[in-house]
Amino acid sequence: MQDFDYQTPTRLIFGKGVIGRLPEVMGNYGKKILLAYGGGSIKKTGLYDKVKELLADFEIIELSDIQPNPKYDPSVLEGVRLCKENGVEVILAVGGGSVLDCSKAIAAGAKYDGDPWDLISYKVKAKAALPIVDVITLAATGSEYDCGGVISRTETNDKIGYLDPCLYPAVSFLDPTYTFTVSKKQTAAGCADAMNHIMEQYFCEDSTILNDGFMEAGLKSLMVNTVKCLEDPEDYTARAEMMLTCTYGCNGIYALGSSESGWPCHGMEHALSAYYDITHGEGLAIITPRWMRHILSEKTVGRFVKYGINVFGIDSSLDRFEIADKAIAATYSFFESINIPMHLRDVGIDESRIDEMAHHVAVNEGLENAWAPLTEKDIADIFRASL
Amino acid sequence: MQDFDYQTPTRLIFGKGVIGRLPEVMGNYGKKILLAYGGGSIKKTGLYDKVKELLADFEIIELSDIQPNPKYDPSVLEGVRLCKENGVEVILAVGGGSVLDCSKAIAAGAKYDGDPWDLISYKVKAKAALPIVDVITLAATGSEYDCGGVISRTETNDKIGYLDPCLYPAVSFLDPTYTFTVSKKQTAAGCADAMNHIMEQYFCEDSTILNDGFMEAGLKSLMVNTVKCLEDPEDYTARAEMMLTCTYGCNGIYALGSSESGWPCHGMEHALSAYYDITHGEGLAIITPRWMRHILSEKTVGRFVKYGINVFGIDSSLDRFEIADKAIAATYSFFESINIPMHLRDVGIDESRIDEMAHHVAVNEGLENAWAPLTEKDIADIFRASL
Repeated sequence: MQDFDYQTPTRLIFGKGVIGRLPEVMGNYGKKILLAYGGGSIKKTGLYDKVKELLADFEIIELSDIQPNPKYDPSVLEGVRLCKENGVEVILAVGGGSVLDCSKAIAAGAKYDGDPWDLISYKVKAKAALPIVDVITLAATGSEYDCGGVISRTETNDKIGYLDPCLYPAVSFLDPTYTFTVSKKQTAAGCADAMNHIMEQYFCEDSTILNDGFMEAGLKSLMVNTVKCLEDPEDYTARAEMMLTCTYGCNGIYALGSSESGWPCHGMEHALSAYYDITHGEGLAIITPRWMRHILSEKTVGRFVKYGINVFGIDSSLDRFEIADKAIAATYSFFESINIPMHLRDVGIDESRIDEMAHHVAVNEGLENAWAPLTEKDIADIFRASL
Repeated sequence: MQDFDYQTPTRLIFGKGVIGRLPEVMGNYGKKILLAYGGGSIKKTGLYDKVKELLADFEIIELSDIQPNPKYDPSVLEGVRLCKENGVEVILAVGGGSVLDCSKAIAAGAKYDGDPWDLISYKVKAKAALPIVDVITLAATGSEYDCGGVISRTETNDKIGYLDPCLYPAVSFLDPTYTFTVSKKQTAAGCADAMNHIMEQYFCEDSTILNDGFMEAGLKSLMVNTVKCLEDPEDYTARAEMMLTCTYGCNGIYALGSSESGWPCHGMEHALSAYYDITHGEGLAIITPRWMRHILSEKTVGRFVKYGINVFGIDSSLDRFEIADKAIAATYSFFESINIPMHLRDVGIDESRIDEMAHHVAVNEGLENAWAPLTEKDIADIFRASL
């Protein structure tokens, strides 16, 4: 078991209608709010009006149009400018992980005098950040319970994950009914994202009985409940279980004391969505089974056996490599069954930039130190197997 | 799935030798420390000297001799007096759950002008508390990661559990090597305590795939690792897994979104240890299988079936009640196998005060609202079946 230093101070307020407590909660942080949101779906669903009505006594400055794979320019830069010019005291992020990730970068940038990219690229360590409150409308990234985010910079094809303890949201409002309107495509992609968060922690050298059972249950919960959500988008219990299982995804609680895996699929997927702006969860679903197949070896087979038996109920009396093969096939089949496009060509990616992307990943993601180390050639091979 | 409002701000610093960071951590809270500890085992193991050496630059006021089932008088009263008279800024609790529970009551009492019993008995709500840092030497109660404690008042046979969000420890140091010297008796009792914490959350009306898998893994981890610890008290991995599994026990993380169970075994056991000052974990181990047998019914059998299959690997093709019977028998057998005395008479409790204790529990613990409601007669029957 590995040493760790863990703290997640975020308050989770979970349930239908919990947004009614928004004025009381926001009042703890100030009167001037930056309201950050995305492309307008919260206007269609009425959530935008609800938030404005609840916060009628606050001064609200708006930052809209934050895109999936949120962009440094214009979203982060514009948000920082609005916070500084208006003396914003607290950020309210309403949306999915992209809105929240962008808000985290803004929260740190607003308390920093230089170029916010210094913080995202770790050139300078963030010393402080505005408090962040969020209302989550998509079960996927777990950004509502971690201190990290992912920001893309188009001109350099960078998609950078950054972390800082000052970026834990102060309060996350989790109302499963806000995910009722999430499309089938995004529901499935969110499931794949959250499953991959767990797999990135599960496939490692050293784990525990507790963590393994917790993560295996997380994977089963995501699969069972996603199927239910696709059948009935307003199945409250299924949306609720999916939401909480996603929430735990990236703050470390699934794997305290387990060894680091290196998060290889995220490292590779970040290049795909930086170069082609594809849906993150779909990119992960495409890569994951190919990565599994690529790294399967005498060293790694034991984890695949455990995964296959405990997550998919594969017959434990079979040969180890046969169990692993079936587990990888079952992973692929599950993603296919929820209608995720399972080839890179299905999402508009061809052979042309694979070597360039593999080089980018090899230089930037440190995957030579992953549990199953990946060279630039390994990464290119996995990308090609995913075509 | 149920609504919840959850926040655990405690920082967990876990691993061998982490105590080296004590001066840096304590420095965040002040220079005047109340060092709270128990009957002197930390002097035998050298931990006391180590702490004093690390904190040579701090002013330390000592409160020693805190007993298991910690007492309001003298420990809490004396601790509050020491804090007030010396202007203590932070409490450092070094020991097991009793030392930490007592420290929590002191932390709140030190910031309150009246009788601290007002706070413990909820007559007055605590408004503030001194910060608490702890170094845990026994894997059992989970007090290091929750905001509650249990305090006994001898003259009234009260053993009261109290909770307040201001009582989360600021930082918990968890070094599994400090549990190497825990006796076989206390190792087993700690296991039973932690298993019962999980069972109190597992046996309820409404749970989730995620919570069930997490809790089943917790129970399996405790059983497997306790056996290893008893065989080899210095098995680091086993002590470490046991420590973390216990840490999660009472802060709610095992069962966010599950319905309340009413914690019936704790309600009953508190009377046993209030009247007879027995070891809490042993009392729980004795009561638990008798409580299970008593509440087994058409309504509850489903949970026992799940428990039996997933925790003990009982054949799922058997009849439901047969699975439940085997699960209850397996629970009893496990506790017996780790040498816990499994009858009340083995720990000095006879028939004489059973009705009085049952009455006390019925009046004070609210078990008529438990998942499987218990009347005074039910409680007395469970006590008698435990004789």
